[in-house]
Amino acid sequence: MIDLNADLGEGFGRWHLTDDEALLASVTSANVACGYHAGDPATMRRVCELAAERGVRIGAQVSYRDLAGFGRRAMDVPAAELTAEVAYQIGALEVFARAAGSAVAYVKPHGALYNRAVRDAEQAAAVVEGVRLARAAHGSGGPLPVLGLPGSRLLAAAAEAGLPTVEEAFADRAYRPDGTLVPRTEPDAVLHDPDQVVERSLRLAGDGELVAADGGLLRSTARSLCVHGDTPAAARLARRVREELAAAGVTVRAFA
Amino acid sequence: MIDLNADLGEGFGRWHLTDDEALLASVTSANVACGYHAGDPATMRRVCELAAERGVRIGAQVSYRDLAGFGRRAMDVPAAELTAEVAYQIGALEVFARAAGSAVAYVKPHGALYNRAVRDAEQAAAVVEGVRLARAAHGSGGPLPVLGLPGSRLLAAAAEAGLPTVEEAFADRAYRPDGTLVPRTEPDAVLHDPDQVVERSLRLAGDGELVAADGGLLRSTARSLCVHGDTPAAARLARRVREELAAAGVTVRAFA
Amino acid sequence: MIDLNADLGEGFGRWHLTDDEALLASVTSANVACGYHAGDPATMRRVCELAAERGVRIGAQVSYRDLAGFGRRAMDVPAAELTAEVAYQIGALEVFARAAGSAVAYVKPHGALYNRAVRDAEQAAAVVEGVRLARAAHGSGGPLPVLGLPGSRLLAAAAEAGLPTVEEAFADRAYRPDGTLVPRTEPDAVLHDPDQVVERSLRLAGDGELVAADGGLLRSTARSLCVHGDTPAAARLARRVREELAAAGVTVRAFA
Amino acid sequence: MIDLNADLGEGFGRWHLTDDEALLASVTSANVACGYHAGDPATMRRVCELAAERGVRIGAQVSYRDLAGFGRRAMDVPAAELTAEVAYQIGALEVFARAAGSAVAYVKPHGALYNRAVRDAEQAAAVVEGVRLARAAHGSGGPLPVLGLPGSRLLAAAAEAGLPTVEEAFADRAYRPDGTLVPRTEPDAVLHDPDQVVERSLRLAGDGELVAADGGLLRSTARSLCVHGDTPAAARLARRVREELAAAGVTVRAFA
Repeated sequence: MIDLNADLGEGFGRWHLTDDEALLASVTSANVACGYHAGDPATMRRVCELAAERGVRIGAQVSYRDLAGFGRRAMDVPAAELTAEVAYQIGALEVFARAAGSAVAYVKPHGALYNRAVRDAEQAAAVVEGVRLARAAHGSGGPLPVLGLPGSRLLAAAAEAGLPTVEEAFADRAYRPDGTLVPRTEPDAVLHDPDQVVERSLRLAGDGELVAADGGLLRSTARSLCVHGDTPAAARLARRVREELAAAGVTVRAFA
Repeated sequence: MIDLNADLGEGFGRWHLTDDEALLASVTSANVACGYHAGDPATMRRVCELAAERGVRIGAQVSYRDLAGFGRRAMDVPAAELTAEVAYQIGALEVFARAAGSAVAYVKPHGALYNRAVRDAEQAAAVVEGVRLARAAHGSGGPLPVLGLPGSRLLAAAAEAGLPTVEEAFADRAYRPDGTLVPRTEPDAVLHDPDQVVERSLRLAGDGELVAADGGLLRSTARSLCVHGDTPAAARLARRVREELAAAGVTVRAFA
Repeated sequence: MIDLNADLGEGFGRWHLTDDEALLASVTSANVACGYHAGDPATMRRVCELAAERGVRIGAQVSYRDLAGFGRRAMDVPAAELTAEVAYQIGALEVFARAAGSAVAYVKPHGALYNRAVRDAEQAAAVVEGVRLARAAHGSGGPLPVLGLPGSRLLAAAAEAGLPTVEEAFADRAYRPDGTLVPRTEPDAVLHDPDQVVERSLRLAGDGELVAADGGLLRSTARSLCVHGDTPAAARLARRVREELAAAGVTVRAFA
Repeated sequence: MIDLNADLGEGFGRWHLTDDEALLASVTSANVACGYHAGDPATMRRVCELAAERGVRIGAQVSYRDLAGFGRRAMDVPAAELTAEVAYQIGALEVFARAAGSAVAYVKPHGALYNRAVRDAEQAAAVVEGVRLARAAHGSGGPLPVLGLPGSRLLAAAAEAGLPTVEEAFADRAYRPDGTLVPRTEPDAVLHDPDQVVERSLRLAGDGELVAADGGLLRSTARSLCVHGDTPAAARLARRVREELAAAGVTVRAFA
């Protein structure tokens, strides 16, 4: 059994990026952009309505405030500001999720914030405090899970704060032997061969194994598999991963 | 009995404008900026915490998305976009209000949106739909009141949508004989004499009367009195209005 | 002889819109977005370099400050602010145009500002004053031409200020019998049939005639023809218009 | 002989910060905000006009794109983007400087970019490349000087690129024995006693000496002294520093 998550609603005003309709047919968890790296309110509303209709779980994809850089530029944001910014984004998305009959069900940082929170304990804690703050506001439903990289400071901070944590794996990213991701700045960081991505997805969901860049095997306890959706080809790939997982007898379902 | 409302949290990052602490000692309702014309998340959080501590009611001061123009430039925003933008702002503020143990208790448009919604039925309806949407998200507590100008399209649209409406009056603005405000672009639109502002406040709260620019009397059913707070002098004036109302036996209390 | 102009560089950060390379092979004048409705600095630089290499004239496509609305929402910007905003955008683009060995050769307002400046004399004058200010800064090369709709307040204000004016026509927009454009909010405002657009382009360049929505003929003295480029199909259409104009013996060249 | 520089035009729209009029009476070089951390176009225009009238030199105070953080949050901006952003800001300011009869005469990074460029060779080089690009656009007047910290990567990169460099010192900041600044996050990083600031200014201008935090003396070849201007008290202090330098026989004049 595995969850499939992807980034959705990553357009802004006139600009479109993710094929939200196509992705919602494939994934079980939608990381919805909340306006800081992408995502205008009308898009957020529409994606939440579509996700609720299709029974896809809604997550808040929180980011640094950086539309010009699409949230991909690490920023030294003081902890108190970061906490408030994270809570702001979750609250804004919550309106659209709940108005659509659903609710924000988890939080996943985006881009540079995701990467920074792997190693930066202070920013990781600030993000978690923002999640906690947003949850304090909307008491029902219990604490809000945090989705992230196994071994990250982010998941450690979430666990310490009593929030559920969900580990994710990437079927289209190269892994180092120590289980960390090969940075995008290096060649071969991203796998482009659909067959290989599908094969890795099956292996991960079926055997709990990832193949590292040196060919070695890594054990994975990831409960969610991240598929990318920011190109037409990627949306098609997400669909194929979903179909092949189902064909292999894997239950694709949002994490509990 | 009358409510005193003022705009709060109208700084942004490094910039400060309203003396939030001083104003919270005087007013009973705080129109908190939600990030679109002013108001960064950390400021929103702090103002909500202070307001909750002091028992001041929290309202969402929603605006056009226009930091550079402080929300004072009318914009032709399509209805669906405006609705989503209003809901986004309310949702973001709701997190901080609720995390502080309070809740967003009303909505008041800011600046150019306030003025536009006096006469523009389409934008008025779009704002009300945004309020309704935000409320649908946070079911408890009943529908969300809208604070506005008597006779405005905004209050008409709110009433039609089944939302409570609260009329407000301005003690420091000149009124035309028909009850509309003299526009800020005209001389004498704003009263600067503190004694005159206090006198008008007392007359309004005590007798339900406003003095028009031609000296005639206007009947007012306003339940809230707006005091401005964006200068040090204005914050002092708000305090004096509060004190003199109390001294005259008027109960200053948030509207029911 | 006719000029072909199109909007270029209308992406922002991660988001792309116009196929700048393809368009630069077809047009003779490039309306480059300057950062207010679209256009980040790196994109501006690249488009200017490509345009300079291909001998395509560079124009500043100035806009309201409205990334979220792509500059399509009319705004009541006070004249002094609008003037400074226009000059700011031109100056920013000038750096990239000149560094590439070219220069800003004309100014064309974008979207809602273009439409507003057709009838709003105050905003038209404010835009022209911004152009004049930018030109005062970069003395060489004489006054900066303004590209706009025949009969518009904008061109009238430009002429009054001593700036050269260039009239443009649209081959894919429906015209009213009085020579104004059918608004986009009405059905049939935009022509989608490529053959019809090509036919109209030829008629305009060859005979100086436009066909109105009622079938009547309008005389046109337009020296520039605007082709749209914000879709892949539109970029192909621009190429076809260019080729068929050339095949018909029309010289396609930037206006003098 | 010494130059006095201060940050000016650091408001944004409705928000004001620096007392530009007062500062222009005291300083000889104005670091004008260019819109990325502060500074709207109308403010930039006004400050340039005032500076030109008073014979104060105009510099471009370039920053990360971060209005919410006032440019004080370090960002991992890729070099090509940073270069284009720096050039964009200089070009925008150049319009107002030249229209006022002056010109951008130097560049000084702001806040986190200033600090980052002390040690980060890649960002330092990217900033310098932006300066070079802007200068290529406006050929007259020779290369554009860069103002910065002695020993910084920024000044090294500028020198390597053939740009003039100007070292500056701070009279209100504590120095470590190695000549670097005590970070603002540490206590006693900023000196608040006006008498002490004045005394240090005189010592620096007269004897070329700075006093380190451990009481030791540092040799300084700074040709410019930075005074802060973002509070009313600071503007008064700038005036006093200017007067006492003059009284001590020091010529206060923009660097050559």
